[in-house]
Amino acid sequence: MTVPSPISHEERAALSPAQARALFRDGLQVPTPGFSAGYAQANLITLPKEDAFDFLIFAQRNPKSCPLLGILEPGEISSELLLGGDIRTDIPGYRVFRNGELTEERADVTGLWREDLVSFIIGCSFTFESALLDNGIPVAHIEQGCNVPMYRTSIETSPAGKFHGPMVVSMRPVPANQVADAVRITSRFPSVHGAPVHVGDPGVIGVPDLAHPDFGDAVEVAPGTVPVFWACGVTPQSVVMSSKPELAITHSPGHMLVTDARDLQYQVP
Amino acid sequence: MTVPSPISHEERAALSPAQARALFRDGLQVPTPGFSAGYAQANLITLPKEDAFDFLIFAQRNPKSCPLLGILEPGEISSELLLGGDIRTDIPGYRVFRNGELTEERADVTGLWREDLVSFIIGCSFTFESALLDNGIPVAHIEQGCNVPMYRTSIETSPAGKFHGPMVVSMRPVPANQVADAVRITSRFPSVHGAPVHVGDPGVIGVPDLAHPDFGDAVEVAPGTVPVFWACGVTPQSVVMSSKPELAITHSPGHMLVTDARDLQYQVP
Repeated sequence: MTVPSPISHEERAALSPAQARALFRDGLQVPTPGFSAGYAQANLITLPKEDAFDFLIFAQRNPKSCPLLGILEPGEISSELLLGGDIRTDIPGYRVFRNGELTEERADVTGLWREDLVSFIIGCSFTFESALLDNGIPVAHIEQGCNVPMYRTSIETSPAGKFHGPMVVSMRPVPANQVADAVRITSRFPSVHGAPVHVGDPGVIGVPDLAHPDFGDAVEVAPGTVPVFWACGVTPQSVVMSSKPELAITHSPGHMLVTDARDLQYQVP
Repeated sequence: MTVPSPISHEERAALSPAQARALFRDGLQVPTPGFSAGYAQANLITLPKEDAFDFLIFAQRNPKSCPLLGILEPGEISSELLLGGDIRTDIPGYRVFRNGELTEERADVTGLWREDLVSFIIGCSFTFESALLDNGIPVAHIEQGCNVPMYRTSIETSPAGKFHGPMVVSMRPVPANQVADAVRITSRFPSVHGAPVHVGDPGVIGVPDLAHPDFGDAVEVAPGTVPVFWACGVTPQSVVMSSKPELAITHSPGHMLVTDARDLQYQVP
């Protein structure tokens, strides 16, 4: 559901990424859709170096779920994706997992920081949603003012080292005559999940009921639309639950890193 | 220059990737262009695990030079890119670097194998050359029957850990009225170097003389054509020379891994 905010829709969209990050650093805790129009938002997963090597291989083997936009080397807290920023404070909500269990939600993870922590910045489907809208394809959760519905599936990721587990997907109902366009348009964004992984019957990928997503909010699937499923950047959180690394820090779903990279930087012709 | 081979052009093209790899395993040492038409050929770099973490970050930061098609975990010798194969024997020529110096060329590296070696399989521009030809864009080194010319440039790669050094590019002269098409077509192959990194004056990227490539063979740059430069998978060899890891094993330029992946698998719309 949309969260009340002291900032209007127009003000959010007009903020530079650095201004948006400064607000979150100063304590604003809201979902990020609508902030800094035209700039890419991203998922975060931070792991001890001991596990980061396996996760890097995992990401390479699962580029649709874990498209890497950037990596902060051990102990690094900033990069050109968040110029002048601090990865420990600039996201409006964090989750902390210990041995695969969600133990805490925090607004700031500075107190947990260690010099061996490696941060992975992973593409987010919000980037291609602008392209869908610009091409006249409706996006239900935006129209319905809620978070995108996400589901754990029976699709297994390709394992690497200790990391394994089911793929998480996001779902958007698309009018049947626009499914081909939705495939074509999102295929042009391979760095932010790319083409759909499944079109049609949710049961085939182990999703029994679209009305009960595992993350985010349910949306209405209107008559004449087909459910279309994309690999989702929440997959690493699901994989962390299955694979139980000693420590993992992630963003809270919907509370993304607002980066200095433009959405269109990730489009190929 | 083309190397005489007991196998005709038509026979090479018709071999399955597994058949081609079996010939190389049995001792055939020839450049691989023309083998197993429609299947992707790839660059190899194998490093001790100690250096592989830094190299993984390097590859993520330099996707145009080092597009990763696959990674073999420590000690692994095969993967779905070379089904039933052996990475230590199935390439027709290897180079061995110790502390950044090329110390040996070998047909087989089984005798050097260690359980801590991690192998990176990196995309090759041969994959998009088929697409250029199919679209009516001439490829000079294929017409002239030689290896593609490659140059060390003044373009610095983005460093990661111990890895740094200049980008190596391949060059193809393209008729001026087809440069736009060449950009569009190769942009659709982000996993195999993607769009060009430079079009036109070689001096701007630190290449003084097209007639003297650092790797491969010089080609004629015909009147009315423009030199177009793509990031090249030989960049890791150049980076190894600058960064001096204890041990690195690579393919010999032009002697690639013939994979079981189809070229078109790496095309986006």
